[in-house]
Amino acid sequence: MKNVISIDQFTKQDIDNLFATARTMKTLVETKGGDDRFRHKVSTNLFYEPSTRTSSSFAAAMYRLGGQVISINDVNYSSVSKGETLEDTIRTLEQYSDLIVLRHPQVGAAKRAVQASQVPIINAGDGVGEHPTQALLDLFTIYEEQCKIDGLTITLVGDLKNGRTVHSLAKLLSLYDVTLQAVCPESLAFPPEYGKVINFTELTDVLPATDILYVTRVQKERFDSLEEYEAVQGSYTVTNRLADTMKLSARIMHPLPRVGEIHFDVDNNPRAAYFRQMRNGLYVRMALIDMLLS
Amino acid sequence: MKNVISIDQFTKQDIDNLFATARTMKTLVETKGGDDRFRHKVSTNLFYEPSTRTSSSFAAAMYRLGGQVISINDVNYSSVSKGETLEDTIRTLEQYSDLIVLRHPQVGAAKRAVQASQVPIINAGDGVGEHPTQALLDLFTIYEEQCKIDGLTITLVGDLKNGRTVHSLAKLLSLYDVTLQAVCPESLAFPPEYGKVINFTELTDVLPATDILYVTRVQKERFDSLEEYEAVQGSYTVTNRLADTMKLSARIMHPLPRVGEIHFDVDNNPRAAYFRQMRNGLYVRMALIDMLLS
Amino acid sequence: MKNVISIDQFTKQDIDNLFATARTMKTLVETKGGDDRFRHKVSTNLFYEPSTRTSSSFAAAMYRLGGQVISINDVNYSSVSKGETLEDTIRTLEQYSDLIVLRHPQVGAAKRAVQASQVPIINAGDGVGEHPTQALLDLFTIYEEQCKIDGLTITLVGDLKNGRTVHSLAKLLSLYDVTLQAVCPESLAFPPEYGKVINFTELTDVLPATDILYVTRVQKERFDSLEEYEAVQGSYTVTNRLADTMKLSARIMHPLPRVGEIHFDVDNNPRAAYFRQMRNGLYVRMALIDMLLS
Repeated sequence: MKNVISIDQFTKQDIDNLFATARTMKTLVETKGGDDRFRHKVSTNLFYEPSTRTSSSFAAAMYRLGGQVISINDVNYSSVSKGETLEDTIRTLEQYSDLIVLRHPQVGAAKRAVQASQVPIINAGDGVGEHPTQALLDLFTIYEEQCKIDGLTITLVGDLKNGRTVHSLAKLLSLYDVTLQAVCPESLAFPPEYGKVINFTELTDVLPATDILYVTRVQKERFDSLEEYEAVQGSYTVTNRLADTMKLSARIMHPLPRVGEIHFDVDNNPRAAYFRQMRNGLYVRMALIDMLLS
Repeated sequence: MKNVISIDQFTKQDIDNLFATARTMKTLVETKGGDDRFRHKVSTNLFYEPSTRTSSSFAAAMYRLGGQVISINDVNYSSVSKGETLEDTIRTLEQYSDLIVLRHPQVGAAKRAVQASQVPIINAGDGVGEHPTQALLDLFTIYEEQCKIDGLTITLVGDLKNGRTVHSLAKLLSLYDVTLQAVCPESLAFPPEYGKVINFTELTDVLPATDILYVTRVQKERFDSLEEYEAVQGSYTVTNRLADTMKLSARIMHPLPRVGEIHFDVDNNPRAAYFRQMRNGLYVRMALIDMLLS
Repeated sequence: MKNVISIDQFTKQDIDNLFATARTMKTLVETKGGDDRFRHKVSTNLFYEPSTRTSSSFAAAMYRLGGQVISINDVNYSSVSKGETLEDTIRTLEQYSDLIVLRHPQVGAAKRAVQASQVPIINAGDGVGEHPTQALLDLFTIYEEQCKIDGLTITLVGDLKNGRTVHSLAKLLSLYDVTLQAVCPESLAFPPEYGKVINFTELTDVLPATDILYVTRVQKERFDSLEEYEAVQGSYTVTNRLADTMKLSARIMHPLPRVGEIHFDVDNNPRAAYFRQMRNGLYVRMALIDMLLS
């Protein structure tokens, strides 16, 4: 694998290998902080739209493997944007870099970058297209928390129509034998092309059987009126009272940032896995960088 | 000490220890540039308002100890600001980091960060609250320049009402046996809660007896009229002619940037210590990082 | 040489030495990625106007020599700009840094920085003044592509009146025995003070005899009307059909970014050297940093 553009590149075997490496990265960080395997290597974070979280995670991943990072965090404020094509920018930056991590607002930007580039490209989100490293870290978290993926009941909650994150995760999960449930208003329904889901409208109905509750943001802008938004938001908010109706072994995930979908008091619930999920992002990105640069 | 939030945390013994370490840092930087003690460690500079000077100083401190830095230099331009609470941002960034250096416009932000965080927090300024590392580097500079603190006559000049810097320094100095003098217009008087000062209005009266002259900015915005501002500014401007009325062993300090309070021709006066003060900021921050990460 | 401010500092012997070092840097990067010679050294990129390309190139150069970089990429967004003089900013940043790379909109800023600074300064462009590292990497590219400089016919195309890049390059070339040709509209003619050129208006006339075709941007703002701009732009656009009328050993260069002056299909033409030119920027900057910090 020369680039990470889409989750479609990954077979079950690839995922097994990646997760095995991610687990060694976890041990490495916990015991020694990191190592020097990519000393003198330079990664460039080329972010055409800002994403502090993702950018920081990739930077930390490179640092902990001994490498260096050039961060171009908002191309709109930089000279890169002066009428230059993405291809020319990539060909320029690859002269200084061993790896380019690209976030771009247009679907297909990562594929265009791969065509232009002689160094590996990692897609860190291309518009409503893909964000494969998020899907992989989500799957890794499920595996780490439940010690298996086959046989699990996974419930997706929130805006399942527009959420790139849940679409990619659902596609990845289709490689496994899982029961996928969706809880959302009809207007934000999960599109069938991303996988088979069982639809629900009430959160309370699905919680007792759920192993993984994957919560996503519901954005105001998707609704015709504020009342409609607030009604939906309210009915899908995860509180401790709701969380406690889940199995003790169940886990609650969220790609973050959250804006009210999960109450702060859930943070201390043993089922809350969303901050560990963030940390897993570090390990999975370290593993992906290792795969591309080794 | 797990975090650096307030100068109130520091006893005289803590300060002695810190300064001893800062002095070894000075030797380290001067002889070898730095070392590798925090290799594979990552510090995050989380600055909700930009402060190039402070951010650069902390970055250099981490680099010279072998560590790496993720710089989030203006959260308003970044995705961190998308409605996320400070606590969630801290909990996210601590997944990638061994240390978080926080600047925030709200008083108490650093304390909130400590509540949320499992990694050490350094308060790099929280609004009109505290900026403890500035106060510590100021005190360290006094000590380095005069080889003692007890017995000194220290004169504060400028806007002593609004300056967070002089308030924190005065609190620190209250641990020592010093004579603290204040020179400022009545409207910008030193608030008694930060320590006991002897008030003066004329700079010329206090200079001959002064060991440390600590000059601060007088900001236009604090005055009703431009004339009033210019009158005050003019009467407190330090020139070479004034500086030369001080003892040869006296020292002039300023937290910088200056906007006219000290004439450029004073820079070559042997009493000018403000650029060395900047450099001491590096050593004190290295010592603080060492204290937290060792 | 303590600073790099102007190409006027460089004798032919200096250039020979620099290029020899640049060639060892090329080998270093290609074989090992870099080394640790400037471990614990810190370079500060102080950019008063953004230039992602130049800033990234200097950062990569420092990283590949084992050093660290503090990037201040747009001073207008930072606190540095709060009324502080350039000299004070330099004196502050040198406290943390072993080297300052300065881009500034005003002619002469780099010289002022040198006066203020005790650490080496590299001029990364001061307004319409100089951009010496660009001229040096251009000359290095000519040498690397043609294995000589004396005897070459070098053709400059585009806006030769306003282009800082071609002026500096022409001055450097005046040290050598080259034939310098200029192709541009009369209103954008090459100023005689930068060297002796033979003027042409038609690109087709000069291509067969040209060894190096140096293409620059023609900016819309320089013209009275859009029609005038488009006429000029069109007549100087390099296409594959035109490129193929050049000698096989000829090379096409461009400082990039391009906005249409060279067709994308020329990229695969063996004469296209502009991306290698970018890469040479890394090696030349590594050599310059080595010269200043060794």
